[in-house]
Amino acid sequence: MAVNIKAYWQAVAEQDQDALAGWFAPGAVIRWHCTNERFTAEEFIRANCEYPGQWLGQVERELWAGEQLVTVARVYAADGSLSCHVSSFFQFQGDKILSLDEYWADDGPPPLWRQAMKLGEKII
Amino acid sequence: MAVNIKAYWQAVAEQDQDALAGWFAPGAVIRWHCTNERFTAEEFIRANCEYPGQWLGQVERELWAGEQLVTVARVYAADGSLSCHVSSFFQFQGDKILSLDEYWADDGPPPLWRQAMKLGEKII
Repeated sequence: MAVNIKAYWQAVAEQDQDALAGWFAPGAVIRWHCTNERFTAEEFIRANCEYPGQWLGQVERELWAGEQLVTVARVYAADGSLSCHVSSFFQFQGDKILSLDEYWADDGPPPLWRQAMKLGEKII
Repeated sequence: MAVNIKAYWQAVAEQDQDALAGWFAPGAVIRWHCTNERFTAEEFIRANCEYPGQWLGQVERELWAGEQLVTVARVYAADGSLSCHVSSFFQFQGDKILSLDEYWADDGPPPLWRQAMKLGEKII
């Protein structure tokens, strides 16, 4: 399927309501599981575009499994105040998103108990 | 590939060092991207098994994409004090894990600005 998912993520980071509206099929459902929220496309676009701050994003992982697309994107505040990795499970209908299940994870240092173990290396 | 990934997640939740050790190929690499940590299998097993508290887990999503397995598991403290969703990207060599890239996301209520928007519904 010819889906340019990087363009989708660019629209998310830029909080581009018009571009985002073109991505969703009628009746699309979006779920943010970590906060137990379920949105229509219109609600999701409002929540995304009214998120405070200016955002940048990169797609770090992208793989297809049948009709599903899985991405991991890093989304971070332009002022450096916040960084997340979001795992996204897209179900497509043609080139439109029919459902999207997301898990937003905040980035940050390891907890103190693990820092004290002095295990492993930094990735980057 | 005949991989019983639920048994893997049971070993993670039960912090069963011996069972976990049997899952990894020699030279396996595990990355926790949100905290920028890279582990050997031995280090990962120590970090997992010395995690404070008693844990329960369920696999909520499981899909294969070629040689890769993606799971989303909910892992939560038996005392109800903490709950996470973890997105995991496994690369297998036969039935052993060669690499594992994870994104651990804390569960919790939506931020106040979004609660004030009164958007959407609860999922569960």
